[in-house]
Amino acid sequence: MAGKKVLIIYAHQEPRSFNGSLKKVAVDELSNQGCTVTVSDLYAMNFEPRATRKDIIGPLSNPEVFNYGVEAYEACKKRSLASDIIEEQKKVQEADLVIFQFPLYCFSMPAILKGWMDRVLCQGFAFDVPGFYDSGFLKDKRALLSLTTGGTAEMYTKAGVSGDFRYFLWPLQHGALHFCGFKILAPQISFAPEFSSEEERKVMIDSWAQRLKGIWKEEPIHCTSSWYFGE
Amino acid sequence: MAGKKVLIIYAHQEPRSFNGSLKKVAVDELSNQGCTVTVSDLYAMNFEPRATRKDIIGPLSNPEVFNYGVEAYEACKKRSLASDIIEEQKKVQEADLVIFQFPLYCFSMPAILKGWMDRVLCQGFAFDVPGFYDSGFLKDKRALLSLTTGGTAEMYTKAGVSGDFRYFLWPLQHGALHFCGFKILAPQISFAPEFSSEEERKVMIDSWAQRLKGIWKEEPIHCTSSWYFGE
Repeated sequence: MAGKKVLIIYAHQEPRSFNGSLKKVAVDELSNQGCTVTVSDLYAMNFEPRATRKDIIGPLSNPEVFNYGVEAYEACKKRSLASDIIEEQKKVQEADLVIFQFPLYCFSMPAILKGWMDRVLCQGFAFDVPGFYDSGFLKDKRALLSLTTGGTAEMYTKAGVSGDFRYFLWPLQHGALHFCGFKILAPQISFAPEFSSEEERKVMIDSWAQRLKGIWKEEPIHCTSSWYFGE
Repeated sequence: MAGKKVLIIYAHQEPRSFNGSLKKVAVDELSNQGCTVTVSDLYAMNFEPRATRKDIIGPLSNPEVFNYGVEAYEACKKRSLASDIIEEQKKVQEADLVIFQFPLYCFSMPAILKGWMDRVLCQGFAFDVPGFYDSGFLKDKRALLSLTTGGTAEMYTKAGVSGDFRYFLWPLQHGALHFCGFKILAPQISFAPEFSSEEERKVMIDSWAQRLKGIWKEEPIHCTSSWYFGE
């Protein structure tokens, strides 16, 4: 939709990968709609995943015992976080919708993307205490996970060996994103592209592009535990 | 127990932290028992969390399109993974029990520890296809998550805002560890040490030391979805 701003956080090493294709069609489709699209290509940026002392510029509030969460909170208030964090926070602040594009690693995000969550969505920027979940600071924004799996759709069912796919979405959608206030759009899961035919992969890519045409009309999912674990 | 080998994967920036104390009492207690204890202090090692081309020494099996999982699998078989990965794999191979000591970040591991999982527990070393879950390659080993939370125990109940603590354990214990065959010991969760009194913190540390005295007699938890999501 013209005028809307989209941030894509993209975590794959290879532009010619299936994840790379999903990212590319999203950029193309959303740009065609007149949206402003920004991509954080984490591997290309060599994004730092480790939460360390280096994230705080200047003196610590307690140099005796280093507490990352406390120091990041104080540094956020004083605008003395590391510049790579501030850059990402600016992009989030501008965005109406944040799309995360990644392959599932061990039922979760690749570490490089986990590091983005750990460092960018800090207290003072994304939430405060109180000021989380429905009152999180990013409550006017939407977030969408677009991910690929190694396992098949069958494996990710209630009776399958890997359990319902919604189980692994809980910490990501509820714990990381909804905690910061984000309204969650339904995930886009492309199951087992590596074990799919060229034809099947094309169908998955097309259905993502197709879905994005109507993305601004979508209602967020009701982000309670029953969506994840209910019958 | 004399003769047993324990690996502690420790992910905290500050030795004088509560996590540091939990790590220290574990080293002390297990050493006193006559166990051989090895610690991977991830921040002190500046452990690399990013899964990249650099993890594969020498030529790629497909230099046209980089597929991390495939290349790591091939490199594992040829013993041409990066030396830091091989070092960690040797430690895991030796261990009877692996303890993960970390603060919960966004309902999950800190990125530096997620990177350890992503890179060290690769196909060919920790599992194969087939050869996962109960037949994962690490099935003769035990794993235990010892973690601290920001939120209180009350928040991590079924009716609490953050849901039952077992919900966030699913991807960690089932998706990352049980997938590789690990038998899972009950988690050790120290809730909200930052909001606890000195006295309460001491109780939590003592109870961890006390538990470790009987750790070799503990039975693994029954690692099915009903443990996580059942009534």
